Amino acid sequence: MTLHEEIFEQPSRLRSLLEQRSQVEKIAGTIRRHRVRYVFLAARGTSDNAGRYANYLWGAQNGLPMALATPSLFTYYHQPPHLTGALVVGVSQSGKSPDIVSVLEEGRRQECLTLAVTNAPDSPLAQAADLVLDVRAGAEKAVAATKTYTAELMALAMLSAALKGDEAMWTDLQRLPGWVEEVLKQDEAIARLSQRYRYMLQCVVLGRGYNYATAFEWALKLKELTYISAEPYSSADFQHGPIAMVAGGFPVLAVAASGQVFDSMLEMLTRLRRTHLAELVVISDKTKALALAQSPIPLPTGMPEWLTPLVSIVPAQLFACHLTRVKGYDTETPRSITKVTGTH
Amino acid sequence: MTLHEEIFEQPSRLRSLLEQRSQVEKIAGTIRRHRVRYVFLAARGTSDNAGRYANYLWGAQNGLPMALATPSLFTYYHQPPHLTGALVVGVSQSGKSPDIVSVLEEGRRQECLTLAVTNAPDSPLAQAADLVLDVRAGAEKAVAATKTYTAELMALAMLSAALKGDEAMWTDLQRLPGWVEEVLKQDEAIARLSQRYRYMLQCVVLGRGYNYATAFEWALKLKELTYISAEPYSSADFQHGPIAMVAGGFPVLAVAASGQVFDSMLEMLTRLRRTHLAELVVISDKTKALALAQSPIPLPTGMPEWLTPLVSIVPAQLFACHLTRVKGYDTETPRSITKVTGTH
Repeated sequence: MTLHEEIFEQPSRLRSLLEQRSQVEKIAGTIRRHRVRYVFLAARGTSDNAGRYANYLWGAQNGLPMALATPSLFTYYHQPPHLTGALVVGVSQSGKSPDIVSVLEEGRRQECLTLAVTNAPDSPLAQAADLVLDVRAGAEKAVAATKTYTAELMALAMLSAALKGDEAMWTDLQRLPGWVEEVLKQDEAIARLSQRYRYMLQCVVLGRGYNYATAFEWALKLKELTYISAEPYSSADFQHGPIAMVAGGFPVLAVAASGQVFDSMLEMLTRLRRTHLAELVVISDKTKALALAQSPIPLPTGMPEWLTPLVSIVPAQLFACHLTRVKGYDTETPRSITKVTGTH
Repeated sequence: MTLHEEIFEQPSRLRSLLEQRSQVEKIAGTIRRHRVRYVFLAARGTSDNAGRYANYLWGAQNGLPMALATPSLFTYYHQPPHLTGALVVGVSQSGKSPDIVSVLEEGRRQECLTLAVTNAPDSPLAQAADLVLDVRAGAEKAVAATKTYTAELMALAMLSAALKGDEAMWTDLQRLPGWVEEVLKQDEAIARLSQRYRYMLQCVVLGRGYNYATAFEWALKLKELTYISAEPYSSADFQHGPIAMVAGGFPVLAVAASGQVFDSMLEMLTRLRRTHLAELVVISDKTKALALAQSPIPLPTGMPEWLTPLVSIVPAQLFACHLTRVKGYDTETPRSITKVTGTH
């Protein structure tokens, strides 16, 4: 399996995960009975970006505030905070990162409810947790994670629907694999478009709200695969200083799906194009946003905002994959990184 | 007042803030009486980096988990999470960012205890809060924040000491302005050293634990002032992918103060220098770390780890200030940004 093949495997993996609805509802039932006050979530790398999605999704749909754990407080400092009232969640495709496992072990020691979201249901992370949500993405061979990311997002989205008990959310989830299939049809167009960025050395990646996570994950794929210095921002934080970097021709990659934050993204993209003379690569379902870009990448229309991160990351994965080839690098084994990183 | 003068004003501003001990202890008393379960903190830009410090400090010293707010849930999505049991904190030098004010207003509506940490005690943020911690940094003229950052850190550190009721922490705090004075003596050396980076266009900035915040703030100053694409990381997250970017001569700026995470930072710096052939600028109080750097910047020795972020940011500010001059840019009015950013 190559990176490109794993990207194309996503619709079928998402479909098979959807069949696990009753298991997810069982987990949701246990969480509801525990009356948790907030979520304390530990993750690294791609899985941390899945956590960023959950921060918005569980906040907006389930009223759950989320603290993103600082694992070094558990490992190096040995001064974990008091977690009373928290649902302690670890997200990790391999389930092997020792620092993420430590956070769950401490959660258990403090008698909190613990949940592992992982592609490895026999891993140390799963063994340390009361509840295990298996994301069923199958073995991932490429070092850069793609199908495990969308599977983690899907698992977190299903849990949100189950916690809320909202049938309309389940109906939307059923349509999701079809939207991902639709966006994959642009593979060749994205391959052509990526050639323009053969000599790009740095860029920023913007997203906001639900797609804040997408900006981070797109930037991470670019860094891992193409060695570009790609820095992710919410468009709000970007205004508080970093926008000063952008002068004529500076490349800005953006995810601007329709929804509550679209107008603020459109305003930022207009400013970047008109005033800063930026180069724009825009992933969007809205003509207005696409029209501002030198490189527009259209999304299917009619998606609910909360599910757009699962679709909008797919052309971003393709963009990173094709740009890697265009730059003459190896998509399967990027230099300096390994599949499982043993941070403490 | 210029940026350079404001950097030099820091020891006296920190001294005058220390005189507010009894006010800070009053605030701590109220917080203790409310038996908060966790902290829900909203901030942007430089103040968000102060929040990153509080995340480690209040976690390690006070056992308080921290959720960093996603203000768009309050403004664009109108779906704020349930905040029962939270101390809701807004950090903002101007106290005027509408989205940060919204988070405090919602906290109040939900009957949580609310705290404003600000340099503007008459601001909308202060008016929306039950408790106001005035950081007393005086008017800050330069667009790039320096003395308001260290004042916010000091206020958060004093509150930690007051919440813990730990006299040893207060003794350390008294010594802090002297350490900042000592590090300012390197002004000319840092001006000379910065010349080497005249043509640097991008870099990464590493820190971990308490100094994770320092890495973010150093990177932000570089972006605001020198327009360099400077990306901050914890050394742990950096291993999960982004390290792939670093090849021969790639500049890595690092804060490696002695303490619990020093050995892991030293290991990372050794790997970057020996295997990746990186260019290293290192701020440290340890000879071993300084010896690895092409550009070593020594810190005073004998500081407790929890206070190192207040000292280690100062040479980083000087580095950014001098590099701005070396590159021929304006330190007082960077392009494209303003002092108060009205994000919603």
